[in-house]
Amino acid sequence: MPLLRAHNIAVSLDGYATGEGQSFEAPFGHAGTRLMEWFFPTNTFQAQTGHRERLAVDPASEADDVFARRGWEGIGAEIMGAGKFGPPGWQDDPDWTGWWGTNPPFHSPVFVLTHQPRVDLVMEGGTTFHFVDAAPHDVLRLAIDAADGLDVRLGGGPSSIREFISAGLVDHLHVAVVPIVLGRGVSLWQGLEGFQDEYQTISQTTPSGVTHITFTRG
Amino acid sequence: MPLLRAHNIAVSLDGYATGEGQSFEAPFGHAGTRLMEWFFPTNTFQAQTGHRERLAVDPASEADDVFARRGWEGIGAEIMGAGKFGPPGWQDDPDWTGWWGTNPPFHSPVFVLTHQPRVDLVMEGGTTFHFVDAAPHDVLRLAIDAADGLDVRLGGGPSSIREFISAGLVDHLHVAVVPIVLGRGVSLWQGLEGFQDEYQTISQTTPSGVTHITFTRG
Repeated sequence: MPLLRAHNIAVSLDGYATGEGQSFEAPFGHAGTRLMEWFFPTNTFQAQTGHRERLAVDPASEADDVFARRGWEGIGAEIMGAGKFGPPGWQDDPDWTGWWGTNPPFHSPVFVLTHQPRVDLVMEGGTTFHFVDAAPHDVLRLAIDAADGLDVRLGGGPSSIREFISAGLVDHLHVAVVPIVLGRGVSLWQGLEGFQDEYQTISQTTPSGVTHITFTRG
Repeated sequence: MPLLRAHNIAVSLDGYATGEGQSFEAPFGHAGTRLMEWFFPTNTFQAQTGHRERLAVDPASEADDVFARRGWEGIGAEIMGAGKFGPPGWQDDPDWTGWWGTNPPFHSPVFVLTHQPRVDLVMEGGTTFHFVDAAPHDVLRLAIDAADGLDVRLGGGPSSIREFISAGLVDHLHVAVVPIVLGRGVSLWQGLEGFQDEYQTISQTTPSGVTHITFTRG
């Protein structure tokens, strides 16, 4: 059975996976880039953005990269919430095609959850955005069909991850706990009291100071 | 200069250092003992409770014990909030002498913050509880005097720790992040947005799955 997996979800000590005040200029709101500093030096990110050759990777980021790259292994489709695809209000901009330029790093079908669906958006490199207004179970069925035997990645943001966990649909969750207090933003954990009881949990701090925690359905 | 240090403050992924519904029967509220399971097998706790000889310590708990025992090294006095000394309403019970029996594990002066001070309580083993209604700066001055050159431990609970951090008085904070979502309770982090900017942070996961994070004033 294909799995639904969420990876590389960074979260502050007070449980916020993005800051307050998200906008085009500030995709993570007042959090800025602080939740993702550990991710930027990884080979996985650098290769996606074309900034670095494989052999030039910073050894200090290798432990983080172990986790980063897992998020891209064996994935045949992605589901993402509206809040990940664009800043608030992107639904009213017919020219918005996502944050990722003409060749997004997904290279697979991507199902964008939105109450204002639009026509499919075919990008370079194998990424096609499908816009769907449907319940989690139904979107997952679409994504599993599209993934052709591979797993489905739940890409975030935090609200959609909470929704899919609450619906009992998430098989694997990887979070990176960043030791900062954001104070405000969008909680990853709200409404998930005791969710970990259904999962096996493994924690590992890396040299960057981030703690990677994986929850795998037992 | 003596330092003000808080140690062994366990906190959930969603930032709660104790659960909801604290009472005599449930000192941590609905959290039960889940935040402190890592602490119970440590030699530090077992020795305090007289349950185990030093040589019989469980090796798997040694890494946690490194952190646990630091909380008791070089300490000459403790400050604790009213919520740590007893369950809600203890102020109305003249016979309440704390959770710890006739020989509490502090073996030093302990300053209990309360708006209803009472006379000093001299216990066995060197612990004396002083009940004070004063601002953080003033209590700290009293505790430093009493500590006779050693450091002062800030014992919790979470509300008093937040108060002393906000007042800029805490030199060292050790938290143990337990990978569970409590959902509700008393937050350790509320109102502390960005506090970590004044501290050097080190994180370390131990075999128990807890992540110890220390914040040391830089």
